[in-house]
Amino acid sequence: MKLDSLAFYSIAELAPLIARRKISPVELTRLMLERIERQNPRLNAYLTVTAELALAQARRAEKEILGGHLRGPLHGIPISLKDNISTRGVRTTAGSKFLSDFVPQVDATVVRRLSRAGAVLLGKTNLHEFAYGVTTNNAHYGPTHNPWDHTRIPGGSSGGTAAALAAGLCFGSVGSDTGGSIRIPAALCGIVGLKPTFGRVSCHGVVPLARSFDVVGPLARIVADVALLLSVIAGADPLDPTSARTRVPDFAVSLRGRKPRARLGWPFEFFWDRLDPEVRVIAEEAARSFEKLGATIEEVSLPHIKDSEEPSTQIALAEARQFHESQGWYPARAADYSEEVRKRLEMGADVRATDYIAALDKVKIVRADFDAAFQRVDAIVAPTVPFAAPEIGQKTVRIGDSEEPVRGALVGMNRPANFAGLPAISIPCGFTKSGLPVGLQLIGRAFDEAGLLRIAHLYEQSHSWHTRHPSTA
Amino acid sequence: MKLDSLAFYSIAELAPLIARRKISPVELTRLMLERIERQNPRLNAYLTVTAELALAQARRAEKEILGGHLRGPLHGIPISLKDNISTRGVRTTAGSKFLSDFVPQVDATVVRRLSRAGAVLLGKTNLHEFAYGVTTNNAHYGPTHNPWDHTRIPGGSSGGTAAALAAGLCFGSVGSDTGGSIRIPAALCGIVGLKPTFGRVSCHGVVPLARSFDVVGPLARIVADVALLLSVIAGADPLDPTSARTRVPDFAVSLRGRKPRARLGWPFEFFWDRLDPEVRVIAEEAARSFEKLGATIEEVSLPHIKDSEEPSTQIALAEARQFHESQGWYPARAADYSEEVRKRLEMGADVRATDYIAALDKVKIVRADFDAAFQRVDAIVAPTVPFAAPEIGQKTVRIGDSEEPVRGALVGMNRPANFAGLPAISIPCGFTKSGLPVGLQLIGRAFDEAGLLRIAHLYEQSHSWHTRHPSTA
Repeated sequence: MKLDSLAFYSIAELAPLIARRKISPVELTRLMLERIERQNPRLNAYLTVTAELALAQARRAEKEILGGHLRGPLHGIPISLKDNISTRGVRTTAGSKFLSDFVPQVDATVVRRLSRAGAVLLGKTNLHEFAYGVTTNNAHYGPTHNPWDHTRIPGGSSGGTAAALAAGLCFGSVGSDTGGSIRIPAALCGIVGLKPTFGRVSCHGVVPLARSFDVVGPLARIVADVALLLSVIAGADPLDPTSARTRVPDFAVSLRGRKPRARLGWPFEFFWDRLDPEVRVIAEEAARSFEKLGATIEEVSLPHIKDSEEPSTQIALAEARQFHESQGWYPARAADYSEEVRKRLEMGADVRATDYIAALDKVKIVRADFDAAFQRVDAIVAPTVPFAAPEIGQKTVRIGDSEEPVRGALVGMNRPANFAGLPAISIPCGFTKSGLPVGLQLIGRAFDEAGLLRIAHLYEQSHSWHTRHPSTA
Repeated sequence: MKLDSLAFYSIAELAPLIARRKISPVELTRLMLERIERQNPRLNAYLTVTAELALAQARRAEKEILGGHLRGPLHGIPISLKDNISTRGVRTTAGSKFLSDFVPQVDATVVRRLSRAGAVLLGKTNLHEFAYGVTTNNAHYGPTHNPWDHTRIPGGSSGGTAAALAAGLCFGSVGSDTGGSIRIPAALCGIVGLKPTFGRVSCHGVVPLARSFDVVGPLARIVADVALLLSVIAGADPLDPTSARTRVPDFAVSLRGRKPRARLGWPFEFFWDRLDPEVRVIAEEAARSFEKLGATIEEVSLPHIKDSEEPSTQIALAEARQFHESQGWYPARAADYSEEVRKRLEMGADVRATDYIAALDKVKIVRADFDAAFQRVDAIVAPTVPFAAPEIGQKTVRIGDSEEPVRGALVGMNRPANFAGLPAISIPCGFTKSGLPVGLQLIGRAFDEAGLLRIAHLYEQSHSWHTRHPSTA
């Protein structure tokens, strides 16, 4: 088997080959490290490459597997981690100046679980400063380039992760999503990203952004791989009191069952309102194609979504500011932030407690909208973002007749799931004429990631978008 | 049996007599209504007396019991309810001008549960305006008088409830406690009041004060009655998302087990610092008397309690203000509040969201202090309040060399349990030379009301304070 041809294999394909000793974790890791060495200077997807650690972990995995001790499907699989996830002994910058030399003493809970599953850590991926952004990253460590077009952004804040996956520089990764930070880069880079239900995955050891919305979740190139990763990282954690005790199914096994007769909800407010025409055609066609797969589609109403933008902004501003105050970083070292983040932290001081509490109440109203819709449908279908990857540095984008800020337009359709705490996945659903990927978002019931993954898997099995890779890779 | 002699019976004594048809619920209800008619003009414990409803409920209970359908130990027992608890068809003022004519369409969850248990509602008891106060109630409906000395306050905010119990004007009641509002009047009126664990009892249908601290709980004259009431009102409620799904034991049954070998913790910070000398002697003697009952007492440290006052005030101010804003009451109708409440609502606007969030974090630190102590002891023992009932209208009180505001001194030792969300009970533990009751507070582990009640019961069984009643009654 020619080694380089393995670069775009899925974890689901690799795992049985590793288990049957057809593929060596050490060689697989070397392949990834070589590709990273070659491509990362152009992409800037990795901030830190842990070559020696990766090889040591791969050797250990290989030894265990040869010794008959197989830990599971992630054993010997080279992965990356967004650099706001603490890794013991490995620099964790959160994309900030403040943590440029920060070497955690302990692993984040998700890291501990991935290590126990035998995964191999290739390195830490680029992100927006403190994960607080979605457009051009990173003010301090330089921008990540979209593998599909190096002049464009990969989206954010888990942009390095998505770029690394799209370019074949890792097989899976874990990111975080406070207002779309997993799904936006997944959409713009043509990969799969799952924002789990709030509380499904421990946030312990992950640098917080906004505590009411922060979730940690998996990214990969296919749905089955996301399911494998989620099965490992999900579950209650005494170190994170917000983590839920809800039972964690084997998400990969649940994909193998009978094909779902999914009932999809087409929201007639908000989500389909303002889209780039090309993205609209692609996303609509993707959504409609579910009908050929035995799914039904009906319109659903989410009347309060439009009111959720301001309260969710207030909550995020206040919670971010409070965290940075609590660390003694803001305002003491205001000059060490990028202008973008500093501005938002400034604004965080203006939020009154009463407005913050009222905003939390509005969460409940939006959640009730979704819950009502989920009485009739299994998932809401919508585009992930309203346009394909913008250029690096681009501030506004034209949608129809108006020029809109890139940032607002990217987060707009993503925040409702954070606001409501619901699981949401972005899957590739086509390409623009200029060859940029387009993402379809499915939003599901609380703690029903299994159902969401089944629907996403159904789509993926009858389409081949996930088999396309950037030519530059 | 001479009927009037039943006025101070406990529910635990009455229940078997009612079950064996020795006592008629209708006659018992008539007795209470007559006593209320006679005494309430002096005490102002009840704001609303539901004589007809009570008699109808008593007749129904009697009919059911004679028909062989006994609902349980509360069947046919006349009780009262604090007037911030919604009662279908019965005016619920919350002690405010705003709700002076408010007749709820639905019962609060606790009322529904009490009705299902067959309890008879005598009426709604006086309280501070919106339960926001502990000293002289009520600015709009006139003060409640302490049955032990009519020139003195019963404490608050569940003052009408505690006065009604002390005076033999009901057999049990339900109040609410945001910063001591069950325990303070229990202590000042010489009865038993339990503030349950946060989330243990549904708050649905109870006018909110501060959502992070509000709990609903039982008051009665003996511990066993509090246990009976708690067993009925506790438990998860889909209508109150903050209610916990934790299993609810039969608290009355758990009293009957083996006598506990309780390990009591004597906090060497804060709780025993500033006390009226007479109260100190009485409370210390009460605490020490546990050793004769087989309990051990050791010192425990709660180092962060002293830092909890400011954050808990900030949380309460902001949450109260937000509720009143959300109702369109404040600032629109600012003139309709008493000066005391209006001042606090004004202050609520000044709390920044970041300070509110930071204050919520401090909750966790105080809770951690308690949790550490509960590794070694089963309950913390302390006075409930630092002095016996002050006079109506009294603003300050002398403790040792200094003059302190009555309000701050009353809530001081109560708020920590609200702040930490822990259960706490106040039981009578003696009388001052002038004949005013003194309360002992026991603070327990989260959701271990059973343990707390056992310890309180142990004390009560070997003391006779609960057999004393005000001579004016």
